[in-house]
Amino acid sequence: MRTAIIGFGNLGRGVLRALMRAEDARIVGIFSRREKNEVCTEANISVFPADRLFDFENDIDVLFICGGSADDLPVWTPRFAHYFNVVDSFDRHPEIRKHFERVDGAAKEGNHLALISAGWDPGILSAVRCASKAVLPDCRTVTFWGEGVSQGHSEALRRINGVKDAFEVTVPNTEAVKNAGENGIFENDDRKNHIRRCYVTADEGADRKRIENEIRTMPVYFDGYETEVNFVSEIELYSRFSSLCHKGRVLSAYDKNGTEAQADFKLSMRSNPDFTGAVLVACGRAVYAAAKRGRTGAVTVFDLPLADMLPPSLSAFDCL
Amino acid sequence: MRTAIIGFGNLGRGVLRALMRAEDARIVGIFSRREKNEVCTEANISVFPADRLFDFENDIDVLFICGGSADDLPVWTPRFAHYFNVVDSFDRHPEIRKHFERVDGAAKEGNHLALISAGWDPGILSAVRCASKAVLPDCRTVTFWGEGVSQGHSEALRRINGVKDAFEVTVPNTEAVKNAGENGIFENDDRKNHIRRCYVTADEGADRKRIENEIRTMPVYFDGYETEVNFVSEIELYSRFSSLCHKGRVLSAYDKNGTEAQADFKLSMRSNPDFTGAVLVACGRAVYAAAKRGRTGAVTVFDLPLADMLPPSLSAFDCL
Repeated sequence: MRTAIIGFGNLGRGVLRALMRAEDARIVGIFSRREKNEVCTEANISVFPADRLFDFENDIDVLFICGGSADDLPVWTPRFAHYFNVVDSFDRHPEIRKHFERVDGAAKEGNHLALISAGWDPGILSAVRCASKAVLPDCRTVTFWGEGVSQGHSEALRRINGVKDAFEVTVPNTEAVKNAGENGIFENDDRKNHIRRCYVTADEGADRKRIENEIRTMPVYFDGYETEVNFVSEIELYSRFSSLCHKGRVLSAYDKNGTEAQADFKLSMRSNPDFTGAVLVACGRAVYAAAKRGRTGAVTVFDLPLADMLPPSLSAFDCL
Repeated sequence: MRTAIIGFGNLGRGVLRALMRAEDARIVGIFSRREKNEVCTEANISVFPADRLFDFENDIDVLFICGGSADDLPVWTPRFAHYFNVVDSFDRHPEIRKHFERVDGAAKEGNHLALISAGWDPGILSAVRCASKAVLPDCRTVTFWGEGVSQGHSEALRRINGVKDAFEVTVPNTEAVKNAGENGIFENDDRKNHIRRCYVTADEGADRKRIENEIRTMPVYFDGYETEVNFVSEIELYSRFSSLCHKGRVLSAYDKNGTEAQADFKLSMRSNPDFTGAVLVACGRAVYAAAKRGRTGAVTVFDLPLADMLPPSLSAFDCL
């Protein structure tokens, strides 16, 4: 499959590393708004300015769109899905349906297939929740994220005026984890299950009170959460966040008349963007296969079969 | 979807209970080789002799085949897949590919769709293994079953001459679990990871030495495993095994240059046949949907999308 990446931040680099390891992917190029010499790639990969992407309409089987969910993907994915089969990692849960509809229209018009919201959550953890509900429709599920750095929340902090750089650490609420795991009491409000710890390096002379207030009131990302805001020096910031590890967990329980069944899925990764990149590449395989069968429009991980996500040298039978 | 069950042992009862809870299933009937008055169903479900099944060729959308993997399914599934869309739970891992091929031919000839090897393993745990390999092709996985009663192994014991009734308890090897979970050392030979404890009530006067020898040397099921054989009275047997709870766990780790990512999926169920039945019903939905789209032949859980396994009142978007 002939692949390309548009957007070359942490996630783009993660996708590149996964594509370089993939036995079945050829990398046509990286498309970036950055200056060419700023884009460091380990291997001999071609780098093009983002606006040259459309010259390659007939040379790319799957395009990995590696932009931010807040500003980039709502514009990029519908635009590119018209011309290419694409995979994105749109992760703003409450807005996924709207994003899906926009992408679906564009992809169908262009006769292409677009898989949105791939990654580990939404993505792998979504599949665990969906499988739980499919088997036991009455089951309850609860999801915990962290302790780990959230890319989306960190990006949201960085967009605030006066913020030089920042990281957000999502921490599950100890009491909620204990209640769910040991006592089977599931709190359904994610905002009560997590603490959001922000580490912010402010620009010199920036109004820290205003920054803190903008963080605490930011809808979707921080509003309603127990949020800590810590202003730290640049040196402390980078020494604290040299790695981007993360964790996720889904607990499912069905207990009509007592606990009938329980599932507990835990995922931990040393590099969130590398792991997310690897999920996107697996989804890219399934997109390529389904597009060849003539499928168009928008889909999610729920819509394509797992068998098509395996690299060709691995047999699904060996996983049975 | 108009459904029916053929075979009415523990698994058939589990499927029935799941179908009765399902909002989208109508039960055409239960087809059984037992006498009608031996088949106790809680509700007003029609019971027919097994040989009347073919009279209902045009009235059943999905047939759940609930026979044993050793003797029934290799014959039943190819035979019924010619006339119906079917789901089975064939669980003899080393023979799945052969079973698949036999069923595939019959289903294609009859223009029907057959999902084989559904359940929790093979089935749900297979999907976890497959997803792990899809995302991180170099990852290692290890599966532990138990502690719990294995239906297939118990059935295998019961087929031995001189065995009145029996249960097998699969127990993960404590050392292997510790090595995998704490030290990341995965033993790939299932036979070294598990102990098989057999509880057998023998017929009066039966040769216990011969029975024990037949158990220990039975290929696939016991040969090569650390196997305990305990002869117990009927009273002890039934007081010990009033419930059929079971557990399963898949650990996946990818650690090229250190541990990059780890997944740990644990499943526990109070009733193995009820949970397996619920998985079969979810798979039945996906079979029905795919058959309507014109798909024929044999498939496994890897080949159909999760979205089609949800009951209609649940939205996949809510699981994202």
